[in-house]
Amino acid sequence: MDAVRERHVLRAELDELYAEYLGCLNDERFEAWPEFFTERCLYKIVPRENFERGLPLATWLCESKGYLQDRVVAIRKTAVYAPRFIRRIVSGLRVIAVQGDEIEVRADYTAFETLLDELTRVFNVGVYHDRIVREGGRLKFREKICVFDSMLVPNSLIYPL
Amino acid sequence: MDAVRERHVLRAELDELYAEYLGCLNDERFEAWPEFFTERCLYKIVPRENFERGLPLATWLCESKGYLQDRVVAIRKTAVYAPRFIRRIVSGLRVIAVQGDEIEVRADYTAFETLLDELTRVFNVGVYHDRIVREGGRLKFREKICVFDSMLVPNSLIYPL
Amino acid sequence: MDAVRERHVLRAELDELYAEYLGCLNDERFEAWPEFFTERCLYKIVPRENFERGLPLATWLCESKGYLQDRVVAIRKTAVYAPRFIRRIVSGLRVIAVQGDEIEVRADYTAFETLLDELTRVFNVGVYHDRIVREGGRLKFREKICVFDSMLVPNSLIYPL
Repeated sequence: MDAVRERHVLRAELDELYAEYLGCLNDERFEAWPEFFTERCLYKIVPRENFERGLPLATWLCESKGYLQDRVVAIRKTAVYAPRFIRRIVSGLRVIAVQGDEIEVRADYTAFETLLDELTRVFNVGVYHDRIVREGGRLKFREKICVFDSMLVPNSLIYPL
Repeated sequence: MDAVRERHVLRAELDELYAEYLGCLNDERFEAWPEFFTERCLYKIVPRENFERGLPLATWLCESKGYLQDRVVAIRKTAVYAPRFIRRIVSGLRVIAVQGDEIEVRADYTAFETLLDELTRVFNVGVYHDRIVREGGRLKFREKICVFDSMLVPNSLIYPL
Repeated sequence: MDAVRERHVLRAELDELYAEYLGCLNDERFEAWPEFFTERCLYKIVPRENFERGLPLATWLCESKGYLQDRVVAIRKTAVYAPRFIRRIVSGLRVIAVQGDEIEVRADYTAFETLLDELTRVFNVGVYHDRIVREGGRLKFREKICVFDSMLVPNSLIYPL
């Protein structure tokens, strides 16, 4: 298989991965969400300003698959918030580098929020900075950093991006 | 052709189908829209709440290509509404199953509305639940259900999604 | 290589091109932006109403790579505007025609704007009408016309789309 063909196959695999990842979240199958990550992993949601300045402050920080699972338990137990749907879409997936077993990927995302009896609005917009590895024949996130454009930290960031 | 290659070819075909489908609607070439469907087909637009509870109530319901064509005639005759553009985008296309001649697909969509002299706003956000078959060498929708997140039924759902 | 395979390879290349183009702009690497164009090129941003009526009035008009480079200089020197991030996403890429060395492409785009201390909002929505050629082994835009849906000309169209 030549290099171009190999690149296109990888791209097709990544398209599938992101479609399944977002499908999982958009369908609210949160229990399946940690399975997209390796055992040791990093998941962060961080404002662009902080990310670009190298400031450590993150809105969400999970440092292992166990943390992600804890998050899901918290989501399911939380009943204080008004019911809402979040729908995430992705665009502009680009492979930045392939180094050893790791694929570095960026992709722009947009999340829309719909509260009961309200119109849908733009919720959160940003870019995924991802590091992906192959584990048991499946692509998994070793690192996913969601860098969002707003300086405002949404006070209702209940669900993953 | 091996299974992986076959999956990627199908995916590329589906990408093309959805791009053409949305291009047709975004360009307002409504007369070409029913041609994306098989003769006997089901087209529905339904709120997520109803869909998930299995309630039959739909905002739009067309049960054959003839119904879709009637819709188009109605659109062209309707002059009571303020002129507006709807632009639809799609993301996260995923093949759920291939069974016999039928491909089951989901894809998230977002529609934006622009009224004359107004800024563009989010109009409708949801997921397509589609069943696709091959007919005369072309992929066609046998079933397309647009499940939208808002509980509110938009009072201006004039054009297809 | 058969025709179908060739079409899918082209499509994969175009997906990469658009992801890199938008990544460049979304990362604010504006100096790299003119490099996506051929030396002699046309870049326009134009309201749909004008475009469809064939009216010449454009919101932005650059008639060579030099003009694009001038734009970038102007952007970097401009300090009067409130800081903001623009994030562009793309969807529905479709090849309209391949004629000689030129590929005619359409793709829908959406741009979101985030001002400091404000929530993200929809900024500009439309469709790219592009003509692409191969130059030095790389796909480049010979023509890019951004046709946007709003009749309103955004008063803050500072950055490229």
